[in-house]
Amino acid sequence: MKTFHITAPDEALRPAIQDKIDNLNKPKGSLGRLEELALQLALMQQTTAPALRHPCHLLFGADHGIEREGVSVSPREITWQQMINFSRGGGGVNMFCRQHGFKLLLVDMGVDYDLSDVPGIIDRKVARGTRDFLHEAAMTPDEADRCLETGAQMADDCHREGCNVLCVGEMGIGNTSPSSVWMHLLAGIPLERCVGAGAGLDNAGVRHKLDVLAQSVDRFRADHPGLPRAGAFGTEAAALALSHFGGFEMVAAVGAMLRAAELRMAILVDGFIMTACMLMAARLYPDVLHYAIFCHEGDEAGHRLMLESLHARGLLRLGLRLGEGTGALCAYPLLESAVRMMNEMNNFDNAHITKYF
Amino acid sequence: MKTFHITAPDEALRPAIQDKIDNLNKPKGSLGRLEELALQLALMQQTTAPALRHPCHLLFGADHGIEREGVSVSPREITWQQMINFSRGGGGVNMFCRQHGFKLLLVDMGVDYDLSDVPGIIDRKVARGTRDFLHEAAMTPDEADRCLETGAQMADDCHREGCNVLCVGEMGIGNTSPSSVWMHLLAGIPLERCVGAGAGLDNAGVRHKLDVLAQSVDRFRADHPGLPRAGAFGTEAAALALSHFGGFEMVAAVGAMLRAAELRMAILVDGFIMTACMLMAARLYPDVLHYAIFCHEGDEAGHRLMLESLHARGLLRLGLRLGEGTGALCAYPLLESAVRMMNEMNNFDNAHITKYF
Repeated sequence: MKTFHITAPDEALRPAIQDKIDNLNKPKGSLGRLEELALQLALMQQTTAPALRHPCHLLFGADHGIEREGVSVSPREITWQQMINFSRGGGGVNMFCRQHGFKLLLVDMGVDYDLSDVPGIIDRKVARGTRDFLHEAAMTPDEADRCLETGAQMADDCHREGCNVLCVGEMGIGNTSPSSVWMHLLAGIPLERCVGAGAGLDNAGVRHKLDVLAQSVDRFRADHPGLPRAGAFGTEAAALALSHFGGFEMVAAVGAMLRAAELRMAILVDGFIMTACMLMAARLYPDVLHYAIFCHEGDEAGHRLMLESLHARGLLRLGLRLGEGTGALCAYPLLESAVRMMNEMNNFDNAHITKYF
Repeated sequence: MKTFHITAPDEALRPAIQDKIDNLNKPKGSLGRLEELALQLALMQQTTAPALRHPCHLLFGADHGIEREGVSVSPREITWQQMINFSRGGGGVNMFCRQHGFKLLLVDMGVDYDLSDVPGIIDRKVARGTRDFLHEAAMTPDEADRCLETGAQMADDCHREGCNVLCVGEMGIGNTSPSSVWMHLLAGIPLERCVGAGAGLDNAGVRHKLDVLAQSVDRFRADHPGLPRAGAFGTEAAALALSHFGGFEMVAAVGAMLRAAELRMAILVDGFIMTACMLMAARLYPDVLHYAIFCHEGDEAGHRLMLESLHARGLLRLGLRLGEGTGALCAYPLLESAVRMMNEMNNFDNAHITKYF
């Protein structure tokens, strides 16, 4: 499998950064999570004056074989219809990208429709959807490598243009299913707590989805005897789960995240699916988490459990469940605020203010 | 007391607004609180295409007699030092105003320092701080009227310049104390649950503050026999509490909020102190709440209780406790997102997308 070389930020600068934050003219700690964000950004950029440059949003789209098992209320055709809609600027993701000044890159990783003639969609199609993991691996290890490589290349392209803050999103009907399985296997959380209503299943629908996923996990274990128990997956077992269950768009997202971390870019992590991708990325390369900013915490219990397993909390809780990376984009102004705090706010000495609490 | 004429938005347009929101190309409800915000803004503006124009931030500053009783860890001089710092652009509030395009108006309502020569500070000083409400009313009814009038005039000035979204903030060492008392008397919450650590009191400090405030409430009741029990304050009793405990900056904020609601402007409500001001405004004129957008929910239990008493939830929870209106300003991009959703997002018909869930 493609390898990455990710290192944690040098901690030597931490005291200087913290000292700068504590001497801004405000009660210590009174800017709450903005202060945590500022510290994280300053550490990853190795400076006491962090900056955000040329933000980019990578939106990977693909279809899923498992969708054929009736695990989603939305039909598969939504994937290609929405990709075209995004290419014309009419989607949720478009307006947030415009609002926050993100360059949007739409990448067809495996949509079940010919989008090769659609202007504004980058054609990296691996196949017209993954295979159905109820019966066989969703993709081959070679296909997984192609996805990782494409994701990494896209992050590279952004970085070359000057980007140091990368948002990643997805469009793929059915992709809560592989996300739930990754969550179960990697975080060791019982499968029934990893499966939610997605975008609107009723109780019977949730039971069916859980049943399909449980059978799929059994099949995976039968195909790979000797796999560790859920929660004890090391790098090798995680790599197997990556290709067996992953969507093309999800594995591309993992590749983009890992390459972004190599390049010391901030990675904006969206909701359930993107958190599952970061969970996978972190199992392969734990140091990726130093560069991850978890942006939105969904209403579904499963997302919160997954964040907890990563010792993370989302910045926003707005009840968003649109996907596309929209929750992550909505948090971007908070990063801008954190950076402004470091660069524009006066300190006690300059402002001639008695230090207060 | 100065009167206001506030009316609730006409509900006749609600179905058309909701219909528009539900037909945007996204699963119904999937933009969560942004959808609620869009509905509220559209209703108050009586249009299905709401807009935000010329956002203004009114920051009222004043000192408090009760500060002499040792209820705050920060010294009184911070108020004037920070006002000067704000006038030079170096405060927390300044950077957020720059970030989000707010015009900032700094108003001296009663700072205990001569700021009349400081460029950029509007001089509306009533007195150099209120009187100490442990022993007497903080201000006279006439002074309260002057504050309401000034706040209203400032909101008017903004509106005349084209503003339809008004943020209100404060600077006043000691002002969590009157806020706690208002919360207790108006929301009927036991005083001990209304008193928190403010900006950094230790346990002994909190006990002392609670003791001072309990004595102050007893004194108020002794001065005004026949007052209703806490939680049962009607308009008349609320008006007494307004002048007896209020800070000049707080009563000006109440006036600004009430006038903004008259003018059908959106009102961005910040943390504990501004929520207490909205609570007071709502007791005087309940319909003001249709125009209130609660922006930030603090970590202190008291703030959450007060929001609950107003059936409100804050948009953000970032652990901010700087005051100045900063928590409200940080939520502004979410209003912009809500408005973009209404104006830029495609609907199912135009986008040629199968309606999904």
